Amino acid sequence: MYEVPSVVGRHVIYEMQDGNPNLLNNEEFVKDALKQAAEDSGATLLSIVSHKFEPQGVTAVALLSESHISIHTWPEHGYAAVDAFTCGEHTDPETACGTLRKLFNSGYGTMKLVRRLGPSVSPGLPQGAAL
Amino acid sequence: MYEVPSVVGRHVIYEMQDGNPNLLNNEEFVKDALKQAAEDSGATLLSIVSHKFEPQGVTAVALLSESHISIHTWPEHGYAAVDAFTCGEHTDPETACGTLRKLFNSGYGTMKLVRRLGPSVSPGLPQGAAL
Repeated sequence: MYEVPSVVGRHVIYEMQDGNPNLLNNEEFVKDALKQAAEDSGATLLSIVSHKFEPQGVTAVALLSESHISIHTWPEHGYAAVDAFTCGEHTDPETACGTLRKLFNSGYGTMKLVRRLGPSVSPGLPQGAAL
Repeated sequence: MYEVPSVVGRHVIYEMQDGNPNLLNNEEFVKDALKQAAEDSGATLLSIVSHKFEPQGVTAVALLSESHISIHTWPEHGYAAVDAFTCGEHTDPETACGTLRKLFNSGYGTMKLVRRLGPSVSPGLPQGAAL
């Protein structure tokens, strides 16, 4: 039998709506929010990279020992595209998204959970073959 | 009527299997691969942040004007968890993933496309309300 694919982590795709435009346009606030989200999710922060667009918008990614959290903001629409991908049972990407929702005073939004499969064997390999 | 939600971009979740372990463990190669993937996808690279794990593994994110491309590698399994999120009609996140597949000599893998919804109005708002 082929191995059952493992699950290496959970990846949450979060559409944040109705956030505070001033906060979504504040690069330092966005970076601090990512730090707090990483901490609350149980992850270890390695570094943060960010960029401020003109006339508006911030994009930032937190690199984690357990993968990453990203945010791309459209302050003029109160919208941010977020994804939080964390590996390991000790971390919770939904908690990271919840922290961002609270910090940006988002009124609503949607989350989609994608299970990351991790290593698997090829469907083309002979029976019993392992990676 | 409520507005039909827009689509702000396309987000490809890519499970890369059977990649070259040495290349997946080479931090400089991984960063160069992200640069090439960004260029091939039609995106504008802002910066790259990366980290090398011991005894193995690389994590790296390319920040783009059009969002980001990330890669987290498990060389010992020939596996990498990739996501490529790009905004705008001039960019193609699937092309970015295809570039990475070729550069790491990946034999197989799976891609999942998530359409990022972008700004929308609340389902709780009265008819005709706009953000």
